[in-house]
Amino acid sequence: MPLITKLPHLGKAVMDALARGAPDVDTDNLPNVTDVTADNLTEVVKIINSQCPDPRLKFLMERLVEHLHDFVRETQLTTEEWMTAIQFLTKTGQICSDKRQEFILLSDVFGVSSLVDVVNNPKDKDVTGATESTVLGPFFIEETREIQNGEAIASDDKGEPMLIRGTVRNTKGEPISNALLETWETDHDGYYDTQYETYEVDCRGRLRTDAEGKYLFRAILPVAYPIPNDGTVGGYLRKMNRHVFRPAHLHLMLLADGYEDLTSCLYFKGDVFLNSDAVFGVKSSLVVEPKIIEDEAEAKKFGFKKAPFHLVEHDFVLLTEQEAKDIKAKARKDRGIPEELPSA
Amino acid sequence: MPLITKLPHLGKAVMDALARGAPDVDTDNLPNVTDVTADNLTEVVKIINSQCPDPRLKFLMERLVEHLHDFVRETQLTTEEWMTAIQFLTKTGQICSDKRQEFILLSDVFGVSSLVDVVNNPKDKDVTGATESTVLGPFFIEETREIQNGEAIASDDKGEPMLIRGTVRNTKGEPISNALLETWETDHDGYYDTQYETYEVDCRGRLRTDAEGKYLFRAILPVAYPIPNDGTVGGYLRKMNRHVFRPAHLHLMLLADGYEDLTSCLYFKGDVFLNSDAVFGVKSSLVVEPKIIEDEAEAKKFGFKKAPFHLVEHDFVLLTEQEAKDIKAKARKDRGIPEELPSA
Repeated sequence: MPLITKLPHLGKAVMDALARGAPDVDTDNLPNVTDVTADNLTEVVKIINSQCPDPRLKFLMERLVEHLHDFVRETQLTTEEWMTAIQFLTKTGQICSDKRQEFILLSDVFGVSSLVDVVNNPKDKDVTGATESTVLGPFFIEETREIQNGEAIASDDKGEPMLIRGTVRNTKGEPISNALLETWETDHDGYYDTQYETYEVDCRGRLRTDAEGKYLFRAILPVAYPIPNDGTVGGYLRKMNRHVFRPAHLHLMLLADGYEDLTSCLYFKGDVFLNSDAVFGVKSSLVVEPKIIEDEAEAKKFGFKKAPFHLVEHDFVLLTEQEAKDIKAKARKDRGIPEELPSA
Repeated sequence: MPLITKLPHLGKAVMDALARGAPDVDTDNLPNVTDVTADNLTEVVKIINSQCPDPRLKFLMERLVEHLHDFVRETQLTTEEWMTAIQFLTKTGQICSDKRQEFILLSDVFGVSSLVDVVNNPKDKDVTGATESTVLGPFFIEETREIQNGEAIASDDKGEPMLIRGTVRNTKGEPISNALLETWETDHDGYYDTQYETYEVDCRGRLRTDAEGKYLFRAILPVAYPIPNDGTVGGYLRKMNRHVFRPAHLHLMLLADGYEDLTSCLYFKGDVFLNSDAVFGVKSSLVVEPKIIEDEAEAKKFGFKKAPFHLVEHDFVLLTEQEAKDIKAKARKDRGIPEELPSA
């Protein structure tokens, strides 16, 4: 049973690859992959993939190969369609930069991002009162504005000023101090900072809750906007005759020691796209209705130049890591997902 | 039933998108996509995609969305795994250039390329004698060496010299003159020209059959080689503990008016990777066994500096467009694929 290194007639390219760490596999143990057919190919690929030492990766690839192959067979995918897909995927990757993530966008419009969200963060709000999660979206970047609790995430007040405040708590109602709150939103025109050619961090911020778990920051009222539609995903949506809009929202991430990370958003009541979000991210528990505050003294107190401003008061409730784990296990059980799936 | 353009409160980004051709969709006709769940999301995405005016694209996306969503549900794909996939796809696109096609390589190692090949080019050799097809591979490029029938595709004789000749015919045995034959292969070390930093077209050629349908060209004996394994696909194969090698082969494409395009290869008997091709491309009808010609006069006659040289004699048989269509329809019927699939 010779391994590759023991085989005769190995050329330079083969030896180079083995020297650089390509797996040295016992070729006698592999199935004969000559003359594959539409009927046996899936099994052949699964057998070859079965040497994967990581049980979770092996499981994921088994399922992925089966679905990909079924898709090709069921649709009788043509060679031209296959090539179109190859070129589409290639261009999608090439559009991506550290400021733009076209593959997340693609996942978003396919509903895959939202599905990954609901599968991983099952609805438990009714039981625990925990804040629901939603999709991350393609506009999160590491770079941001570090602010003190009480400051502004927007560099100027070009939009409609908004104050947002509340408490971050656990499911017992206890405040969580020093929780990290990361937030990002569009400007008043509906564009994120990263979408401008002359890029400067804006309408983003990272702050921490105070000793009573309270947060407060100034922002601007976000507005509805199109997802980026000058790339492959935009071209795809045009062909599908789908609208490209998201209702206005403020993205949030909350991270605290011992608690499950929360990726969420606040949406705004009355938005014309609230029921038809292009990326399927809206949850009604995340819809807020700002109050309009006309009082000049209040405006000054919070650092606005003048009234009126929009006031959003919203508390966030985080699950402990253990609570999140238990809820997920229960949801899997309720939905008939085997407990013995290989884990990551 | 307002279209988007008739909705109130549209900001600059929304108007910009509509002005640039984003579809203006009747939002009242869309399903409410608030509070999607793992159970209803697939249906919601299918309803939104159902406005696609192209029946084939609509069908492909219905099947694709269902498979993608089933994959996420069955595997309970984690948010981290989803992000790993997003980053993998992004990097895969970014590795691609006009000389490198990492997504075709990915499709190859998943067996998808080979499946698309066998689905589109059902085995009919036993009936018609037509040459079987195989995978295109990621090394085809438009740029090549135009040669006259009888010339060499390799710039020098650094490898083992090989003469390849034969006739291109139709299934009635009639020669096809002026057929375009495009061919590409590795050099003696197992690398394609495009894999060298100092790139120059080599071991590629484009020629035409003569009045009797004959072709003849000088090449070098190709050798087994690894598929490119310094990128995302190489990293993936290492994690799968899969070998990365292909048996030696000479790629060919044959194009002639009125005939089905043929993408094929010749493989070489005795190659150590013949039964375990990393991309599942070998068909036994495409395996040839070169003769060794020791005669110096023969060598000189064909333009070699000296004997010995390898001689491959192989005829190719092309299907007419109508024959190909009929064979494909029959294969679909035999495999129980509905005739009424939306066509491209």
